[in-house]
Amino acid sequence: MRKVLITDHPWPDVEIERGIVEAAGFELIAGPVEAQPAGVIETMVAEHDPVAIMTCWAQVSQKAIETPTQLKAIGRLGVGLDNIAIPAATARGAWVTNVPDYCVEEVSDHVVAMVLAFWRGTVALDREVKQGYWQPASARLQRVADKTIGIIGYGRIGTLTARKFVQGFGCRVLVNSRSLLQQVGQEVAPGVTAADIATIQRESDAVVLHAPLTSATRGIINEAFLANLPRKPLLINVSRGGLIDNEALVRALDGGLISGAGLDVIDGEPSPPKSVTTRTDVIATPHVAFSSNASLVELRRRCTEDVVRVLRGERPLHPCNQPASTAK
Amino acid sequence: MRKVLITDHPWPDVEIERGIVEAAGFELIAGPVEAQPAGVIETMVAEHDPVAIMTCWAQVSQKAIETPTQLKAIGRLGVGLDNIAIPAATARGAWVTNVPDYCVEEVSDHVVAMVLAFWRGTVALDREVKQGYWQPASARLQRVADKTIGIIGYGRIGTLTARKFVQGFGCRVLVNSRSLLQQVGQEVAPGVTAADIATIQRESDAVVLHAPLTSATRGIINEAFLANLPRKPLLINVSRGGLIDNEALVRALDGGLISGAGLDVIDGEPSPPKSVTTRTDVIATPHVAFSSNASLVELRRRCTEDVVRVLRGERPLHPCNQPASTAK
Repeated sequence: MRKVLITDHPWPDVEIERGIVEAAGFELIAGPVEAQPAGVIETMVAEHDPVAIMTCWAQVSQKAIETPTQLKAIGRLGVGLDNIAIPAATARGAWVTNVPDYCVEEVSDHVVAMVLAFWRGTVALDREVKQGYWQPASARLQRVADKTIGIIGYGRIGTLTARKFVQGFGCRVLVNSRSLLQQVGQEVAPGVTAADIATIQRESDAVVLHAPLTSATRGIINEAFLANLPRKPLLINVSRGGLIDNEALVRALDGGLISGAGLDVIDGEPSPPKSVTTRTDVIATPHVAFSSNASLVELRRRCTEDVVRVLRGERPLHPCNQPASTAK
Repeated sequence: MRKVLITDHPWPDVEIERGIVEAAGFELIAGPVEAQPAGVIETMVAEHDPVAIMTCWAQVSQKAIETPTQLKAIGRLGVGLDNIAIPAATARGAWVTNVPDYCVEEVSDHVVAMVLAFWRGTVALDREVKQGYWQPASARLQRVADKTIGIIGYGRIGTLTARKFVQGFGCRVLVNSRSLLQQVGQEVAPGVTAADIATIQRESDAVVLHAPLTSATRGIINEAFLANLPRKPLLINVSRGGLIDNEALVRALDGGLISGAGLDVIDGEPSPPKSVTTRTDVIATPHVAFSSNASLVELRRRCTEDVVRVLRGERPLHPCNQPASTAK
């Protein structure tokens, strides 16, 4: 029976995926919960010769993609595509798919949760109370409505994060995106103004990263960026760890250049540097911004369905490439 | 020189208060940061014979109010009045004032912060990551937009909390208030429906307390209330600890009747029971929901100005009683 390989799954079981794959007449082979290195994935692929690969965070390398005798689809259980060697898939005629919009609510909720965790002190003060202190005089809290939020990346998720801060809290929101270059200085949605990076740096009380990880965005939050933040903002990253240079981040926190960092993703995960995670001016969650009871079911179902769609010979709902043999 | 006594001040200094009091020709006597028992306050009052008393959380008893030779005003540095023996003030002709609207943004921000701290896991997951775990598969997170928020108490703060959940996150919001008894079942603001307590219990994913502490509201969150919450909601209290029966709360958490409690106020503070605060299904902050850099300055200035206004012979801006000698 032809096999679908799921390389990793940061949820306990693969019953949703298995149900859909088996109903379509294929066999599901499941790797472990935790993402393994590229070499391990390549070995799994060589062993099982899958017709489709589904992946969450594991690297699906050029070699993994070129090895199977008949590879039709690579389904990303998520939005970002930085862990898939797309050109290799395109060259051999395999579709790459993702699920672009399943967790827009969750990720933007997560950003607001992290910002409020700092400005309302919930994480730090709960830790103090649990240690036996009850010291209201030590709190340095903030009124959210007074703040300016700078968002880098204005796709589906950035748009919703902006809306939550504007409509929910009355914040001023600045957004930066390649797609908005011609509109800098203009209001692109109620309360949301397109801005260049220098303006985001100069005026933000919180800088939120909603950009994909590409060769152009890797390390954009570096020493130079962090040296020019007069309002000592929070830095929030719910996109990809590689956007931030960890060493520059630690120096910026040590030097008081920023007031805190809320990180759902950290370069080096799933074993991020303790020099980042153990700081009390860092709030870290283990790459779960996408996750909710509702979103996980939706993600797993939709990704598997799109892969099965390709295996049936149909065009996927969410193609991320145009495979060579299907090019028009 | 006639004296103004400030009984307690959960902020490090009293320079704002002192500046306003001295500019008006009075002397400021400051008690300690932490609120002392009623007997200590009575002794302070007997020693200094103030013409006005300002208090944050310390009890200003009937005896404290009857002792001074010339008491003109008791200013509450806050909203709630449960720590002031108002009838004694009224009887001897002293005004009681508060600052009713200085922290509406902060308290409603704090509610959202606590709800999101649970539903996005920030407090619990940051603790896990700091302990060296990075386990996304363990997260049980929620999509805020899917939720129903039940709010008990619909004054200035409850109204703003409702607005933030509706306009920011697209939640359904139910509100209960004596003032809305005739409107149960009706939409009282966009997305906000007046509801009876039974409906709040039956349909809420989070129950938020925005009610004042009175003889009628003390212990309203008791075993009977907690036994009838089919959706196992969060319970959020940013009002007064006395609204909740601590022992019933612990039993409800032990029994899984509610999924967590976010508590900025706890009966027994500033030494709340460890059986409440040390639980991982409780997020506690030390009575700081009212606080921000902005709100504290506003609170301290406005309370002191209203007390000085009375000392000059004028009517206060925010009277909370009608003193006997000024009755019309």
